[in-house]
Amino acid sequence: MFMNPNTPSPPEPQSRFLRACQRLPVDATPVWFMRQAGRYMAEYRAIRARYSLLEIVQRPEVAAEVTLQPVHALGVDAAILFADILLPIVPMGLKLEFAQGEGPVIHNPIRSARDVALLGELDPQADLGHILETVRLVRGELEGKVPLIGFAGAPFTLASYVVEGGASRNYIYTKSLMYGAPEIWHQLLAKLSKAIADYLLAQVEAGAQAVQLFDSWVGALNPQDYARFVKPYSQQVLSAVMASGVPVIHFGTGTATLLPQMKEAGGNVIGLDWRIPLDEGWELLGGDVAVQGNLDPVSLFAPTPVLRQHVEGVLQQAGGRPGHIFNLGHGILQNTPVENVRAVVDMVHEKTVVG
Amino acid sequence: MFMNPNTPSPPEPQSRFLRACQRLPVDATPVWFMRQAGRYMAEYRAIRARYSLLEIVQRPEVAAEVTLQPVHALGVDAAILFADILLPIVPMGLKLEFAQGEGPVIHNPIRSARDVALLGELDPQADLGHILETVRLVRGELEGKVPLIGFAGAPFTLASYVVEGGASRNYIYTKSLMYGAPEIWHQLLAKLSKAIADYLLAQVEAGAQAVQLFDSWVGALNPQDYARFVKPYSQQVLSAVMASGVPVIHFGTGTATLLPQMKEAGGNVIGLDWRIPLDEGWELLGGDVAVQGNLDPVSLFAPTPVLRQHVEGVLQQAGGRPGHIFNLGHGILQNTPVENVRAVVDMVHEKTVVG
Repeated sequence: MFMNPNTPSPPEPQSRFLRACQRLPVDATPVWFMRQAGRYMAEYRAIRARYSLLEIVQRPEVAAEVTLQPVHALGVDAAILFADILLPIVPMGLKLEFAQGEGPVIHNPIRSARDVALLGELDPQADLGHILETVRLVRGELEGKVPLIGFAGAPFTLASYVVEGGASRNYIYTKSLMYGAPEIWHQLLAKLSKAIADYLLAQVEAGAQAVQLFDSWVGALNPQDYARFVKPYSQQVLSAVMASGVPVIHFGTGTATLLPQMKEAGGNVIGLDWRIPLDEGWELLGGDVAVQGNLDPVSLFAPTPVLRQHVEGVLQQAGGRPGHIFNLGHGILQNTPVENVRAVVDMVHEKTVVG
Repeated sequence: MFMNPNTPSPPEPQSRFLRACQRLPVDATPVWFMRQAGRYMAEYRAIRARYSLLEIVQRPEVAAEVTLQPVHALGVDAAILFADILLPIVPMGLKLEFAQGEGPVIHNPIRSARDVALLGELDPQADLGHILETVRLVRGELEGKVPLIGFAGAPFTLASYVVEGGASRNYIYTKSLMYGAPEIWHQLLAKLSKAIADYLLAQVEAGAQAVQLFDSWVGALNPQDYARFVKPYSQQVLSAVMASGVPVIHFGTGTATLLPQMKEAGGNVIGLDWRIPLDEGWELLGGDVAVQGNLDPVSLFAPTPVLRQHVEGVLQQAGGRPGHIFNLGHGILQNTPVENVRAVVDMVHEKTVVG
């Protein structure tokens, strides 16, 4: 049962997406895409010609429009809030810049106990009210057509950005902090986890009907480090949000050796990237959880017959079992042909194997 | 039995490293490091102050000196030829540049059937004679002290560089070629595989006593794509080289879901990165193959007691079974403290659990 405090009754009891999160039978496999709003869409590029990413998220009307673009253009079964996982760290005191062509840069990365001590608390209403307003606007405009997914970065992935000062290849600063100053690491993760949980709960309160926790880079870790340095924090966030009653998707990439622990950490749905066959991943997780995935994002660059084979391969591996949400193994890449994304939505809806 | 055509009898029959490759008992676990010669060493930086990377490999005396630096400084159980996996593609017609701070750039990447048709054949003696001369020089200078490992990039990893035009995050061009023009992909891989096998055999003929095939980026693929687009080519290279009688190490990263197929493709030793516990990886592979790995390269930045725990953890997972070669899960990173690398060699030699 999904109890959303802002709405008097479950708003989309027949939504394929929300039913699949609960492993209930569906008429067709639900499908949405990570980063389904973005540069690959002409509608989005038109908006970006006028506003920077940060300007979009600061304008709820614009952010709502961007959130809804793929719902209108693609026919996906869920909307996902347009935002960035790094937004919560700005009011916490980090100087974030999206540098041209370089990705995010944090000019005052966290490397010491003092840096962690200086990190402020996040007050989602006061600090990120514009995002919560976007959630409300989108919910209103969707009129129950499809559910809205909120999201946040997971403790490890957020920590990796704030410690490295941006994206990373080898996570030298992040792991050095773990290994060399575990007490600082634990303080940092505790602060981030509280902020993330509060932020997600605020999104739920504003109307998000499900949330996804993005632990995109957790696959850089071995299972032992995950157990000690990450799992307790992910668990804390996930259990807080699951207690609100909305379904939670727990996502990562490169997680073949982490999946059993990620499931223990929590989530109604576990994301699978393309490196693990969906059936094998689901078996590793056990049958009592839903799965989301797991097409290689580069499959969207393939000719239609090949793309169709890949899509059908994923559906066959899911075998029509209740609890599969079709998605990519990671976000849509820039320059992805829109018509292929639209084609996948149709393929999934048409070709669903009902078990 | 290692039959090296250039040497009348097995030159280091008691070498720990070569014994471990054959899963024979050893007095202590052998240890060497991928990228053990490199910028983290002051001796290497002194040479790089005078020569570029390409200038070093073109001067056998200098390349030999660099190859031997870690043998003298660290006490490792094997030397590995100082070279770069991209060198063979230059005489094949690719315009390679090591751009400052950017890594390798290939100015004429391969994207079409015509590009593949224009790729020349590699004649290792004529084209890479300076590298073979380095092998001979190093063998002479080592005087049987420790064995010399030769190496080459694997067909997929080399292909990913030549198709992308450098390093990549998402392998869009590479996978698009696989999916969209498989006949061109297969032609490319066939040409690369022949060149790689010939190059490795020439290294063996020049005196390399083992070789490692680096499929560093193969973890970007799912098992299905690996089976169809990569495995036959890796197999071709590996079986050609194994027929020469020297042991072959088959290495990749992010390979948790590919390991059984990598073993089928070949190699006396399979490399394991740090994402999979060594015992779990070895079990996946079956007992009839040796393993190499699998310390996280970032562990070398940890304080000594933590580093020691990590090293002992790997040794405990290996459990003293014959056939473990201690190494990192990937290459030594820049700025790694040399004293920590040296400490690991001692820890491994002292703490070996003899099973």
